[in-house]
Amino acid sequence: MNQMDIVNLLIPHDRKMPAKMEGHGYAPSNIALAKYWGKRNKTLNLPITDSLSISLFDKGTSTSIEASPYTHDMVILNDREIDSDTLFAQRISHLLNLFRPDPSFYFKITTINNIPSAAGLASSASGFAALILALNDFFQWELDDKSLSILARLGSGSASRSLWHGFVEWHAGVSEDGMDSYAEKLPYQWPSLRLGILIISNREKNITSREGMNRSQQTSPFYSAWPTQVAQTMEKLHTAIKTKDIELLGSAAEQNALAMHATMLTSSPAFCYWQTETLSQIQKIWQIRNEGVPLYFTEDAGPNLKLLFTDEISDIVRSEFRDVEIIAPFHLS
Amino acid sequence: MNQMDIVNLLIPHDRKMPAKMEGHGYAPSNIALAKYWGKRNKTLNLPITDSLSISLFDKGTSTSIEASPYTHDMVILNDREIDSDTLFAQRISHLLNLFRPDPSFYFKITTINNIPSAAGLASSASGFAALILALNDFFQWELDDKSLSILARLGSGSASRSLWHGFVEWHAGVSEDGMDSYAEKLPYQWPSLRLGILIISNREKNITSREGMNRSQQTSPFYSAWPTQVAQTMEKLHTAIKTKDIELLGSAAEQNALAMHATMLTSSPAFCYWQTETLSQIQKIWQIRNEGVPLYFTEDAGPNLKLLFTDEISDIVRSEFRDVEIIAPFHLS
Repeated sequence: MNQMDIVNLLIPHDRKMPAKMEGHGYAPSNIALAKYWGKRNKTLNLPITDSLSISLFDKGTSTSIEASPYTHDMVILNDREIDSDTLFAQRISHLLNLFRPDPSFYFKITTINNIPSAAGLASSASGFAALILALNDFFQWELDDKSLSILARLGSGSASRSLWHGFVEWHAGVSEDGMDSYAEKLPYQWPSLRLGILIISNREKNITSREGMNRSQQTSPFYSAWPTQVAQTMEKLHTAIKTKDIELLGSAAEQNALAMHATMLTSSPAFCYWQTETLSQIQKIWQIRNEGVPLYFTEDAGPNLKLLFTDEISDIVRSEFRDVEIIAPFHLS
Repeated sequence: MNQMDIVNLLIPHDRKMPAKMEGHGYAPSNIALAKYWGKRNKTLNLPITDSLSISLFDKGTSTSIEASPYTHDMVILNDREIDSDTLFAQRISHLLNLFRPDPSFYFKITTINNIPSAAGLASSASGFAALILALNDFFQWELDDKSLSILARLGSGSASRSLWHGFVEWHAGVSEDGMDSYAEKLPYQWPSLRLGILIISNREKNITSREGMNRSQQTSPFYSAWPTQVAQTMEKLHTAIKTKDIELLGSAAEQNALAMHATMLTSSPAFCYWQTETLSQIQKIWQIRNEGVPLYFTEDAGPNLKLLFTDEISDIVRSEFRDVEIIAPFHLS
């Protein structure tokens, strides 16, 4: 099975032509509490494990799509046209290849991202999710959530989780074609939950998360224990979300993140997304927690940290971390 | 089996009284290239895995032993008497309990340690090894190397490896009484090998290596893969030592150290001996290596790093790391 086979399975054959002048989509960024780290199929982005995320509400990507006036795709990110030679533009064109009405049809993509790109803040997740939503609108596919999640996954695995606000679970699935590997919104609200974004660096990463997870999966002697770690994390997260237990949610997410980073340290060659400030902030979080404050963190494939806590300690978090950006994921709930 | 049973097995029954006014011993510190991290028996310090170290030649502990003039043990470390309430003094008295000619006999221990204590520089290894050598001299036990290694192990696991210069291998053994768990000198010289000690902090550790290894063993989901990691490291180290292959020695030792630290990060609660400077120096080492210089590191249960390289690049190491102390482990070979 290749990506085109999946597209042919999902998209109605009478919906291959644009149905509007412009299609639009918005997708929130999502922060995984149980990480996606390792693939059972690289072509279809099928993961080794389930994963579970919380969406960042109004931090995300807004995308419009229309026909390109040129004989090439145009990608405009935050008002600047992206060179078609960049990895970013190529990944988008590669996905768009699946949806061209004919081979000479090119797209113009205008996208606004209000989170830093490629700094471990899951911008590719919201980016590819918004792109699929915009395509769904442009072609009037009228696809169900499951199908949209599968298509978003073809662009970027974690994009499968970026179609909803709140808690989202991505089922790894077992089938070869990945038709059972899609995300779903979990029916739980937690209005007092907060995420705190601690930006340590906006620089592009030396190693993409795609490269990183492949290297960990292929070379870390600890990777064999990763699926069990995630299964335990998933169980704890489900309980924590149902009972609104921040200690359980925070500790499960933090342990999962550290386990993911431990697979990087034990890869060959080893790699580490931490910067010295990442480490000093982690030590600060541990110290604050030792004093009885229920503050936790998670960290993706980048140097930045995401604090996990509830609104009761927002004042403490603001006073301890001057530059933190606090997000209420259930703002409108 | 308790510790006393082992002592009764090893020490001749007619050698229970001091044979001299003073006994003396010197033991070098040792740096593990394949780490000792986890015990199959805590009373006897029997390890889960084999380990392999390189001794620091003239960095170590020199100890004299005589009868105490008081009704308590006296421990004098680097010209200062150590309070008998300290963990350090208690660990020594606990070991000395095994060797008192009668319960009212107390020892005076005078010890000179030319390496920083409790900063992950294996001072307890050389300390307990020197103590056993001094006792062997004081009582004129005339024990063989294997027996001395077993006795040193009762004081501190890694002390079993501190009785020799050069490369030393500690066999984990399988027997309940640990009579097959002892160290041996390996018959290989490598005169151009260098260790570079990078002291990042001399502060006492918050978590002793004893506590740390127990917590990792009991709580890290990755610990199950640790024995396989060590077995692979041991195989690589044997080949590297025989063929004087610094790339193989360095990469095997570095990966093993990072794997040990990864079991700490994934413990519950997590802990980390790294300080921010540890991380920045690790990144500097990786950068230097990316430029083609065969420079590696290992790190024990503390923030300090030990560089691994050969004399060909000593000048580079000295210019890149101003405060490095370079040791030639085969100085007299």
